[in-house]
Amino acid sequence: MRDVAIIGVGMTKWGELWEKSLRSIFVESALLAIEDAGVDRIDSMVVGCMSSGLFIGQEHLSSLLSDYLGQNPVPASRVESACSSGGLALRQGFIEVASGMSDIVLVGGVEKMTDVTGCEATFALGTAADQEYESYHGLTFPGLYAMMAVAHMHKYGTTREQLAMVAVKNHDNGSKNPLAQFPFKITVEAVLSSVLVADPLRILDCSPITDGAAAVVLCPADKAKAFKKPFVRITGTGQATDTIALSSRNDIAWLESTHIAGSKALAMAGRKIGDIDLFEVHDCFTIAEIMITEALGLVPKGQGGKAVAEGLTARNGKFPVNASGGLKAKGHPVGATGVAQAVEIVKQLRGEAGERQIKSAKRGLAQNMGGTGGSAVVHVFEAE
Amino acid sequence: MRDVAIIGVGMTKWGELWEKSLRSIFVESALLAIEDAGVDRIDSMVVGCMSSGLFIGQEHLSSLLSDYLGQNPVPASRVESACSSGGLALRQGFIEVASGMSDIVLVGGVEKMTDVTGCEATFALGTAADQEYESYHGLTFPGLYAMMAVAHMHKYGTTREQLAMVAVKNHDNGSKNPLAQFPFKITVEAVLSSVLVADPLRILDCSPITDGAAAVVLCPADKAKAFKKPFVRITGTGQATDTIALSSRNDIAWLESTHIAGSKALAMAGRKIGDIDLFEVHDCFTIAEIMITEALGLVPKGQGGKAVAEGLTARNGKFPVNASGGLKAKGHPVGATGVAQAVEIVKQLRGEAGERQIKSAKRGLAQNMGGTGGSAVVHVFEAE
Repeated sequence: MRDVAIIGVGMTKWGELWEKSLRSIFVESALLAIEDAGVDRIDSMVVGCMSSGLFIGQEHLSSLLSDYLGQNPVPASRVESACSSGGLALRQGFIEVASGMSDIVLVGGVEKMTDVTGCEATFALGTAADQEYESYHGLTFPGLYAMMAVAHMHKYGTTREQLAMVAVKNHDNGSKNPLAQFPFKITVEAVLSSVLVADPLRILDCSPITDGAAAVVLCPADKAKAFKKPFVRITGTGQATDTIALSSRNDIAWLESTHIAGSKALAMAGRKIGDIDLFEVHDCFTIAEIMITEALGLVPKGQGGKAVAEGLTARNGKFPVNASGGLKAKGHPVGATGVAQAVEIVKQLRGEAGERQIKSAKRGLAQNMGGTGGSAVVHVFEAE
Repeated sequence: MRDVAIIGVGMTKWGELWEKSLRSIFVESALLAIEDAGVDRIDSMVVGCMSSGLFIGQEHLSSLLSDYLGQNPVPASRVESACSSGGLALRQGFIEVASGMSDIVLVGGVEKMTDVTGCEATFALGTAADQEYESYHGLTFPGLYAMMAVAHMHKYGTTREQLAMVAVKNHDNGSKNPLAQFPFKITVEAVLSSVLVADPLRILDCSPITDGAAAVVLCPADKAKAFKKPFVRITGTGQATDTIALSSRNDIAWLESTHIAGSKALAMAGRKIGDIDLFEVHDCFTIAEIMITEALGLVPKGQGGKAVAEGLTARNGKFPVNASGGLKAKGHPVGATGVAQAVEIVKQLRGEAGERQIKSAKRGLAQNMGGTGGSAVVHVFEAE
């Protein structure tokens, strides 16, 4: 396999973009990435999107987006793995370049979520759970993650305040990210007094509904120097699945797919978790980030709540997590999130992250997951 | 890149399978392919599916299907390119094995289309067209292909009877395929007197709504001899896109994406079209098969209608097309079709196609497309 590098990244402001369509937000980010890379062509493109069918009545994004980007007849693919669709797109692009099939591959992620009602969005997101054994019976994602939170609190003594601290930290980071949907700080008190969604999770424990896209350009590492910007190598990729239904798991307070995908990605990169300088992880709910820090091995099992309370995962902590603001503050256009994680890490490793820059960052890790952890994709990135 | 072989295939009876769910029909075909290959593990799986979100309210097939196949935590991916989702899955699986990332990859395709009303199915299929410029204004796929048919008839003198002969040929082939949804013969008169759907296309010019799945197992060619059955090499793969909307094309009587994907696949295999012994192509409507035979170069532009009338594409003709019965008679579960084409070609190259066997077949080609040709995937297969 050939070594693979990211030579360009692109992302526009996320939010409720009612005046823009899916195709337009995708094209904006893709053009930024192409311009950033300085490439004069792409050989192929891979797009992650969870449910354009249910959100905007449009499938066949391969044709639509290559068309609107003016890139017909290049090969184009859409991949889906619920909220890890973006991470999966990056992995497919990586494999395509590594294989020798294509040299310059555009990887994008996109989701247009605000053109439907809240009920319709909740239904669409619910298709990431088991339709027959979970969604059909009324379970939604806040409900599923609430059960995981209760289990974690019961088993390890994780507190309601520790959950809130994840949101406070990520909004503090997001306040320094001009592309974030909610770039403002919040307090623990604000979280604790916000509307209850599914006990113990409140609205400020939940990532939002977002329109957004993100894109990166890949090429073989040995050709990366020819382009404009300092490049970043993808040195490891790991992907794993778990049961789709929470009820089939041995332990709902543990994310096995993230643990396996993370271990594989680190092994491929030849790194240990302590070698990594910053992390972008899938904080779809506050409890998720706590469980992910445990599954990746940043802290021992059960210690994720304590870690955030002690500042371990703060921007100036030992393991900075979600310097971008995470899904919580940056927003969570589900198919785009995994690609946006790569965009943030590349900006950090290039020293272009402005007020939220992690000093001397050389290596980053992105963890993206689908459903309640039914799928997970992890990548390791290293500056040249 | 490593050479890639198909070492096992699986497919069950297609039709209106109201007593079975998407997960169950996928697992049935996948287990047949695994048994046929004689593998005791898979390293990864890729599934093509067009719109499980709209058809059954379920996304996240990566997690669902690896779970129900008992394969967690293997990496699993779902890919979508409308009706070419199956062909795309095969291509992604090919690239994954060729790259060295995985050795034994299960490639599946699945669609469960009959759990919704006809209107809902028409809406779901319409998401393969341009939602904003085609579907929203009332265009459906029979309408789009009817316009292509009218253009072809006007430009080249293709006749209504020639269209009918495609359906008659494919039902004749399908009558010898026990897995086909409609395994019976029809006549030109039956086609011409069947219900008008979108002038000039009648119901017997249209492929049906189908529940079905298909699967193949891939591995590196140099390891293929270790398994049970004679293996088949995938020697070429080509993928291309075109504008999603028909109105943006220079010529709606020509399938440019199929032309490019076919040329690339043949070039990669080092073959010419005359070297190929049998073809499985995407006859979603009778006019489509006529246009595909032209785009692949079996006949000159405009001669596809004449070719079917003269028997060139019959089972005992120079270029046998759709010996399986094609989408028309075998059925068209949209995400499964591209994989089922590979299943048929492998059976033919192994000499296991029963009454529809093409004598001395050594090389086959599969052409799968999405929408009105907004995407196309072509593969070349060769017996050892």
